[in-house]
Amino acid sequence: MSAYITEICKKAKAASFTLAQLSGEAKNVGLCHMANALEANAQKILAANQMDVEAAKVKGMKAALLDRLALDKKKIGNMAKELREVSALADPVGSIERTWTRPNGLVIGILRVPIGVVGVIYESRPNVTSDAAGICIKSGNAVILRGGSDAINSNVAIGEVLRDALTGTGVPADAIQVVASPDRAVAEELMQMREYIDVLVPRGGADLIKTVVEKSKIPVIETGVGNCHIYVSEDADQKQAIPIIINAKCQRPGVCNAAEKLLVDVNIAKAFLPKAIAKLREEGVEIRGDEETRKIVPDVKAATEQDWYTEYLDLVMGVKVVKDVAAAIAHINKYSSHHSDSILTASFDKALKFIKQIDSAAVYWNASTRFTDGNQFGLGAEIGISTQKLHARGPMSAQHLTTTKYFVLGRGHIRE
Amino acid sequence: MSAYITEICKKAKAASFTLAQLSGEAKNVGLCHMANALEANAQKILAANQMDVEAAKVKGMKAALLDRLALDKKKIGNMAKELREVSALADPVGSIERTWTRPNGLVIGILRVPIGVVGVIYESRPNVTSDAAGICIKSGNAVILRGGSDAINSNVAIGEVLRDALTGTGVPADAIQVVASPDRAVAEELMQMREYIDVLVPRGGADLIKTVVEKSKIPVIETGVGNCHIYVSEDADQKQAIPIIINAKCQRPGVCNAAEKLLVDVNIAKAFLPKAIAKLREEGVEIRGDEETRKIVPDVKAATEQDWYTEYLDLVMGVKVVKDVAAAIAHINKYSSHHSDSILTASFDKALKFIKQIDSAAVYWNASTRFTDGNQFGLGAEIGISTQKLHARGPMSAQHLTTTKYFVLGRGHIRE
Repeated sequence: MSAYITEICKKAKAASFTLAQLSGEAKNVGLCHMANALEANAQKILAANQMDVEAAKVKGMKAALLDRLALDKKKIGNMAKELREVSALADPVGSIERTWTRPNGLVIGILRVPIGVVGVIYESRPNVTSDAAGICIKSGNAVILRGGSDAINSNVAIGEVLRDALTGTGVPADAIQVVASPDRAVAEELMQMREYIDVLVPRGGADLIKTVVEKSKIPVIETGVGNCHIYVSEDADQKQAIPIIINAKCQRPGVCNAAEKLLVDVNIAKAFLPKAIAKLREEGVEIRGDEETRKIVPDVKAATEQDWYTEYLDLVMGVKVVKDVAAAIAHINKYSSHHSDSILTASFDKALKFIKQIDSAAVYWNASTRFTDGNQFGLGAEIGISTQKLHARGPMSAQHLTTTKYFVLGRGHIRE
Repeated sequence: MSAYITEICKKAKAASFTLAQLSGEAKNVGLCHMANALEANAQKILAANQMDVEAAKVKGMKAALLDRLALDKKKIGNMAKELREVSALADPVGSIERTWTRPNGLVIGILRVPIGVVGVIYESRPNVTSDAAGICIKSGNAVILRGGSDAINSNVAIGEVLRDALTGTGVPADAIQVVASPDRAVAEELMQMREYIDVLVPRGGADLIKTVVEKSKIPVIETGVGNCHIYVSEDADQKQAIPIIINAKCQRPGVCNAAEKLLVDVNIAKAFLPKAIAKLREEGVEIRGDEETRKIVPDVKAATEQDWYTEYLDLVMGVKVVKDVAAAIAHINKYSSHHSDSILTASFDKALKFIKQIDSAAVYWNASTRFTDGNQFGLGAEIGISTQKLHARGPMSAQHLTTTKYFVLGRGHIRE
């Protein structure tokens, strides 16, 4: 391992022990200092960000990505606001979850504690640097942040501002470590540091997540790929259905909880599909349909097998006619990314079947999938949306960055 | 991937969907049938086990390992008893953990559900085949069992008996899959099957666990390595301390919750160490000490740096003199495997400091470390003792083989 990464890891680990013992109040003071410092140092951050934006333009970065990379005063204000909101949440650590006494008199309890050191590997949005640092500190964890190379100057500047802000507070500056090297090999080194990092959270596109899952020796929480479905049952309220589909697909097509597939019950397909497809096309959505869909709306492009697996993150939607709720469930459980799927139906029985049988982090009844989000669920800011089943599933907020330990109180107890 | 492993994975995945929807009652019927079948087919299992034992003798397997491999009627009776005990536990799935209503009227809830397919990779003890199958079925999960090659005939026979026992019950026989190939490459294939297996639990020695952690692309729960410590503070009840140390070290030295290291406060070392070491030696324990220990008891062998990291699983104990509770905590957090560590003290302040600051799954006050065990904690049979912080920490029983999903109930809700 390079001395650079080892040093970062050691500092984070040492800081994590201090941080784990701090009161909620001390962590909140740190978070508020961080928020104030972002606003006070906006010029410094914007100057660094300008360097990244210029370099990205020279490289020919697409407008949509440039927009994610570029900061302005308003975005910095939002980063500060997010830190203040996180500071206002209840302290997720220190609670005793449960205690019980064994027949031999041994008292056993479960104490909620921070995880330790969280590694975050992410792509171009520099606001993740302060958002992730905030959630980690709130939950008592040190954080190692490795952002995309395109945002390296912005991330380093934000990291310096946040670390400086912690001086004189109880929170050690070393609790925030920004990896200042854009080198890919450095990121891969980070994925080997089991001794120091307790969990790795990748945030970004499917390729980034796949790389981290495959290369990491540290436990990973897989986040964010969302091939989300809406199934319209034959007894759905069709007037309600169309606004839900449009909202789920179009309100923000580039995010993980946007719907990518529409499944329609065969008994209403002829009546419903022409209306739904016309509305989607009005919003600029390209439709890719199965054979049955194309019999009903002939000018729809044919969907390939690969389409059913794809998260478009764009104004494209796959449409399929299904026999019944069981066929919808089978299709979704086969092709979905286990993120968010919704059934539109008036039937409690069908809704219950769907909720029980769909193997996804969030299952909806008569609502848009766009609500899968820490703030929308009322859980506070999130570090990602877990699509795996271990540890945390769905929006991961500060409370999900904690673990427990058992304490066992004896009076000379030995095992017989 | 080989057709063989793909087939096993597909069958387990399909069975997991059926199993996830079963009532607690239906699963319990399956478990009781499994228990009865083990007893009724003891001869068949013993005959297969005899083949494994003969082959192991030819290969020159050590007596202690032969003892773990060999089954008899009593051990089979215990396997059946364990299944019956698991069937008597409360159903860990199906509960609604919490529901709440958002300001927009959306109702959100958390439902406890099975994980799906659990892979277990383990070493020579064939009872793990039925123990792990029982816990997985109780928690609604299909299981893929890959035991050690030494026990292959025993494991295949147990698997056949258990699968046959499920015929006619609601539990699909395919919920239990025993990998019948002793080939290492097959085990490595299993570790790649992310599409089908949701979590992999390695059970065995440090080498097995390291291999699985490094090669698996499936989320792993690391189990079992226990480099456990006992710290004797200056104000410990010394009469109580010696039986605790002897119990923790000697009652069953080959298990993960046995103590491997003894740390003694410098202020009592001169008085306490000669007594403690004499008692340990009476029990046949070899002592390896630091410099201070060897000043007090000169015929103690010198411990190396490596000793402080080592889980001996044998009648060997490392002994070190430490300055105070802070030094004990620093040593343990550096060298321990984060399993179980105990402080012996009369001081509430010191105990609290130790409990809060030791970064381990179970932290003890005035008791032997030997209680870290699902049944001793009152949690029921365990599939392993997790030493990582994600998902489950400490003894993992049926309840820890579950996850949650969110359900979201709307009335045409769309995101603004």
